[in-house]
Amino acid sequence: MGTAGAAVGDADGNASAGDSRRVAVPPLAELASRLGEGVLTTDPDIIAAHARDEALFCPAEGAIALVRATSASDVQEVMRFATEHRIPVVPQGARSGISGGANASPGAILLSVARMNDVVAVSEAERTVTVQPGIINQDLKDHLAPFGLSYPPDPGSVGISSIGGNIATNAGGLCCVKYGVTRDYVRSLTVVLADGTLSVLGPQTAKGVAGLDMRQLFIGSEGTLGVIVEATLRLVPALPDPFTAVATFPDERSGLQTVADFMAGGGVPSLFEFLDGSSLTMLNAYGDFGLDGEAGSMLIMQVDLAAAESEAMMANFAEVAHACGALDVAYSDDPADSADLIAARRMIQPAYEKFAGAHGGGQLLDDVCLPRAAMPEFCDRLDALRESSGLTISLVAHAGDGNTHPSVFFDAADEAETAKALEVFGEIMRIGLELGGTITGEHGVGYLKRDWLGEELDAGAQRMQLAVKNALDPLGILNPGKMLGGL
Amino acid sequence: MGTAGAAVGDADGNASAGDSRRVAVPPLAELASRLGEGVLTTDPDIIAAHARDEALFCPAEGAIALVRATSASDVQEVMRFATEHRIPVVPQGARSGISGGANASPGAILLSVARMNDVVAVSEAERTVTVQPGIINQDLKDHLAPFGLSYPPDPGSVGISSIGGNIATNAGGLCCVKYGVTRDYVRSLTVVLADGTLSVLGPQTAKGVAGLDMRQLFIGSEGTLGVIVEATLRLVPALPDPFTAVATFPDERSGLQTVADFMAGGGVPSLFEFLDGSSLTMLNAYGDFGLDGEAGSMLIMQVDLAAAESEAMMANFAEVAHACGALDVAYSDDPADSADLIAARRMIQPAYEKFAGAHGGGQLLDDVCLPRAAMPEFCDRLDALRESSGLTISLVAHAGDGNTHPSVFFDAADEAETAKALEVFGEIMRIGLELGGTITGEHGVGYLKRDWLGEELDAGAQRMQLAVKNALDPLGILNPGKMLGGL
Repeated sequence: MGTAGAAVGDADGNASAGDSRRVAVPPLAELASRLGEGVLTTDPDIIAAHARDEALFCPAEGAIALVRATSASDVQEVMRFATEHRIPVVPQGARSGISGGANASPGAILLSVARMNDVVAVSEAERTVTVQPGIINQDLKDHLAPFGLSYPPDPGSVGISSIGGNIATNAGGLCCVKYGVTRDYVRSLTVVLADGTLSVLGPQTAKGVAGLDMRQLFIGSEGTLGVIVEATLRLVPALPDPFTAVATFPDERSGLQTVADFMAGGGVPSLFEFLDGSSLTMLNAYGDFGLDGEAGSMLIMQVDLAAAESEAMMANFAEVAHACGALDVAYSDDPADSADLIAARRMIQPAYEKFAGAHGGGQLLDDVCLPRAAMPEFCDRLDALRESSGLTISLVAHAGDGNTHPSVFFDAADEAETAKALEVFGEIMRIGLELGGTITGEHGVGYLKRDWLGEELDAGAQRMQLAVKNALDPLGILNPGKMLGGL
Repeated sequence: MGTAGAAVGDADGNASAGDSRRVAVPPLAELASRLGEGVLTTDPDIIAAHARDEALFCPAEGAIALVRATSASDVQEVMRFATEHRIPVVPQGARSGISGGANASPGAILLSVARMNDVVAVSEAERTVTVQPGIINQDLKDHLAPFGLSYPPDPGSVGISSIGGNIATNAGGLCCVKYGVTRDYVRSLTVVLADGTLSVLGPQTAKGVAGLDMRQLFIGSEGTLGVIVEATLRLVPALPDPFTAVATFPDERSGLQTVADFMAGGGVPSLFEFLDGSSLTMLNAYGDFGLDGEAGSMLIMQVDLAAAESEAMMANFAEVAHACGALDVAYSDDPADSADLIAARRMIQPAYEKFAGAHGGGQLLDDVCLPRAAMPEFCDRLDALRESSGLTISLVAHAGDGNTHPSVFFDAADEAETAKALEVFGEIMRIGLELGGTITGEHGVGYLKRDWLGEELDAGAQRMQLAVKNALDPLGILNPGKMLGGL
């Protein structure tokens, strides 16, 4: 493992390759000396191992150093140094993102807060928890359980993604249909700005309107405005055990129509997931979850109201599903049944990876959020895309929110098929926009979708984005090229 | 009523008095000709009648014209004209605010959207409503009732304040303790920017993370970044009838301690209001609401869960209240009882006005939000202030959120007492900040609190606020001097 002192040569080499505008060699040894032992490294192997998140097709070359911060003061040192020497900085958490938002940039310092993963304080009186950004979402949930408190946001990556990254991307998940997204649980943020200034954004209180809400601006800003070093999160009393229903359908449309009709009729699910036929087939090939592999689609729906209300809502769901042509509807109030079904749903990505592995390795996971009522038409448009492209496209969705995750599978060794898959990936976003949706419901823009952002935002919104970015990061050193890089 | 053509002379006079930097007379007749008949007026009496909101101690002089916009395109015309001629613009809704945010500024055009008050569309499928900004909150609620849908935010001003103003101040209210604030219900905004550009901020979908969240930045921006001309709001199924409990206490501390203890124990009220002894006395002097005028304080608490859960929570509340020393606890599931109690609570401001009327006319209403557990200490600090100042200070609070509204009463004809009252008003905010609170939980900064904003925000946050304001309103024409004017 290289130390900073020994590795300035490496830094030099990387830097001149990666950023031809910069003439001076940044004195990384000086920065290293301001940080603790082993906090900064320029070891190329270690840098390479930290250079990317889980996204495909995103560059991740040219980082000159990795800083594994242990404190807000480490982060401040890095940003002061970066401002002084005009060095790009890429903030990183668990690197579990799938849009390339945490990928290295040429000449950049990778600034990881993964080691800053403590729970600072739990307040039962205020129903809040204050954490460092590197804590893993599930670890936080586990920490809170003995207090009888819940932090609801549960992205698919709940077991591997960190709270700082969840905030930086405003992560969603399965419970959003009732409990909202990460944004809804952030009470205040401590951030380090581009010039190293430490600032607390948002009051510690339940309500507060003192000035422009910079806390809200930072949520979902993907590391382009500053580095989150602490967060106070709003909690709720421990969530009750839900009732769970499963319904299977002969095709996709009838499942999605059930979602639209049940919600329009006043349904209040706490989880409402859709899986298409190909996803069911891939899950069955991955493990024995007792799913009907012959069904054209499946819905998993949960309700966590009081028992009588939940039963009534389950009965209403069954009625709506049957009216839409369901093959079968079953429900249970046994927490074990619920847990099994949700575990199966959470296995969809490994199941996709197994399928992809046997078919050339390529998978592009999309994230189009639609008006709920547009989902059946979206499904028809995907059918047309399957036909025109010849590619396998699977669909799962946080259907209660209209948040769809189509996956395009392709042979990554076949250049033409890869190009076609990328084209289909973009076409899916365009269809989403045509149907009144967004190119990204919860995964973020990062590098992967930066060239599509301009298709969603109007001219005024684009100018505002760039003006605000420039106002808060005038040197353009914070995660350059990401999110707004295509505008 | 003056017409624009006839009134340029007035405009000239006002403008040169109010803004010595501007040399040219703005050609208001030209602007008037671009708007419909009667949209722009320079009649001094009409301008004077529209020059201020409900705040005291805030200047409201020097406006040169009033535009009562009937469309987004009127708003665009005004902003284009204002940019071209560098004229300040003060966006106005119902002018029901109490911080002076809608007050006239020297040389400014008052831009009212009160006439833009239509419901554009209700979508039962998406559970959203799209409205123009001038619609009154209660009118929207009434419009939605036949659809079985609710728009929860219910500021005290629900019957007189408009949705545009609610969004511009991120208005709170009585239901926030369970249902959150205005921000939590805004799905997308159509705004007119400083240069007249129309832009849609935020997707129409339930989730969306495409770029920096400008919609969130606009919520609570008090007209300093642009003018809201349309909003799509998230709705929920009609709220159930609540159970209502009332508890009286010998003093204030025991009531506030009950709030802290009940919430720390997992209570989930849908409303949780506190009234101190002097507020009860003033209410009893205003009308016969059947309240115990001898009590030192009172809590009104509602729960809207399923019947069995609500009953259990009511029993728990009674237990906690008695443990804190309650004089009496009663509860009811009769909607008429609930309505009566809430109606009494909503009469507090008229009751205060009656008291003030008999004691020199002055009332300063504060809006400090605190950590819940700090409320008893806050109460002690108010006692000390009463003693040192000799002034009457009453206290009501959205106690479940820690959002307190102390009122300082004074003889407005007595200069020394008025000065003392203003000092006490500021001291209350300082105490709030010392106890971990904010200077404004829901009323906004406006003009009234602009000199205190710098005491709440740290240096980095202040710089960010100004940088963002400057980036989006480089000429400084949008509601100048308000909110950030003291930084």
